[in-house]
Amino acid sequence: MELVTVRHDGALRAGRIEGDDIVLLRWPTVKELLADDGLAEAATDDGGEVIARAGADLAPIVPRPDKVICVGVNYADHIAEMGRTPPDHPTYFAKYGRALIGANDDIVLPPTEASTSIDWECELALVIGRPVRNAGPEEALAAIAGYCALNDVSVRDWQTRTTQYVAGKTWESTTPVGPALVTTEVLGDGRGLNLSTTVNGVVKQQSSTEHLVFGPLEIVADLSRIMTLDPGDIITTGTPGGVGVARNPQEFLSAGDEVVVEVEGVGRLVNHCVGS
Amino acid sequence: MELVTVRHDGALRAGRIEGDDIVLLRWPTVKELLADDGLAEAATDDGGEVIARAGADLAPIVPRPDKVICVGVNYADHIAEMGRTPPDHPTYFAKYGRALIGANDDIVLPPTEASTSIDWECELALVIGRPVRNAGPEEALAAIAGYCALNDVSVRDWQTRTTQYVAGKTWESTTPVGPALVTTEVLGDGRGLNLSTTVNGVVKQQSSTEHLVFGPLEIVADLSRIMTLDPGDIITTGTPGGVGVARNPQEFLSAGDEVVVEVEGVGRLVNHCVGS
Repeated sequence: MELVTVRHDGALRAGRIEGDDIVLLRWPTVKELLADDGLAEAATDDGGEVIARAGADLAPIVPRPDKVICVGVNYADHIAEMGRTPPDHPTYFAKYGRALIGANDDIVLPPTEASTSIDWECELALVIGRPVRNAGPEEALAAIAGYCALNDVSVRDWQTRTTQYVAGKTWESTTPVGPALVTTEVLGDGRGLNLSTTVNGVVKQQSSTEHLVFGPLEIVADLSRIMTLDPGDIITTGTPGGVGVARNPQEFLSAGDEVVVEVEGVGRLVNHCVGS
Repeated sequence: MELVTVRHDGALRAGRIEGDDIVLLRWPTVKELLADDGLAEAATDDGGEVIARAGADLAPIVPRPDKVICVGVNYADHIAEMGRTPPDHPTYFAKYGRALIGANDDIVLPPTEASTSIDWECELALVIGRPVRNAGPEEALAAIAGYCALNDVSVRDWQTRTTQYVAGKTWESTTPVGPALVTTEVLGDGRGLNLSTTVNGVVKQQSSTEHLVFGPLEIVADLSRIMTLDPGDIITTGTPGGVGVARNPQEFLSAGDEVVVEVEGVGRLVNHCVGS
């Protein structure tokens, strides 16, 4: 099953993709659907209004999650290009909900006087479906509702102005997430999926989630030792090699650029950069 | 004015402290009060039920904020004891709402097999009262509703197992915040307030917010460049010297310990540590 959150008639609505259509469901967003344990109902509900998938205005899958938790330093090739060594534990940092945008919304770049070093990061993200604490691998899989793509757009000079990344990771309206939540019956543990970033038609990142140091189940198990994970929480698993800051010469995003992030089996984020 | 969020009759209620009483208000928590621009109404509403302040069951001022943003490395003496150099920019990291507890709730220590290096950190926190982006100093002050105390209880080995602090900063039910939100008419820019930590009656930290490297107004101005700050957001400003990990020998919290954090003009957090 593939779920979306759309902007429809001035409000948010959860929906299920059926071929070229979206069947609108009774929840405002996928977060309320999940909190309501509504996956079974969502799969069979055919009573709702149907809209065309083409041209649907996609919101972030979960527009205001309780948590957005990011994992860094989690692909062997990206670890090498950033000059780091493979970690013993997942490296977590946060984004706040204000950073999130829909799969085709504009990426709002910081003003050029604040930063001109804005970078791309294609990632597989997972969305929590039910509350979980101290999960083993099986409980971790059961707690994951499904997967989506996320572009962890990063303001590199703010990310590195102190030891902690968050100042460069949570600029408002910079982080596309979507296009759909594809459930675990389809994608299992999220391993073995190709993912890529293309900027203005040129491939910049290309890898597979097979190369994740810590996969979705290990991440959920580890994080759930720290705290309960809740329905709608978004956890993004890190990016492979090919980011702009590690290129020679370095490359960054500018107003007018088109960035495409694709995750196999999940779909594409197509976003244009605009100034602010 | 001093506002609280209490647990009353099985639900949450915002209230205003009046001497030995709490006047219950019409909002479930201080977050909804602030989002509703309700400070003026809250100051004059005398129609509500009144309960005794003594024995009131205090919830976190904002139980589930949109954001909890922490500042580290922000007192000259703590910077020295941790062996760091004074920063050019505030160091931000995150907590998630699941970490927060009320002013007299038990601090739930991680299981001893997960960690035995749990530390105290007394802090002045501020609560955002109205949405703000790209604030100058005056707008920053106008955007702050008021101040409270926060004990940024830290799981030191998890904090330092990677470069990013968050894994040691957001353990469930570890972070007392309160007891009241004291508004800016009373406390202004939050500078010049004494603050301390006492463990089992022994003073461990004692300083003044005068020694903050970045004060509340500078922090709000800087953070609001990154994103809009929203009503109910909690921003905590960092801790002075005297933490357990920097002592010789090191000292950490155990089940049964009583920790008192006090901020002048704001009040006291009195919490007991329990195992899990």
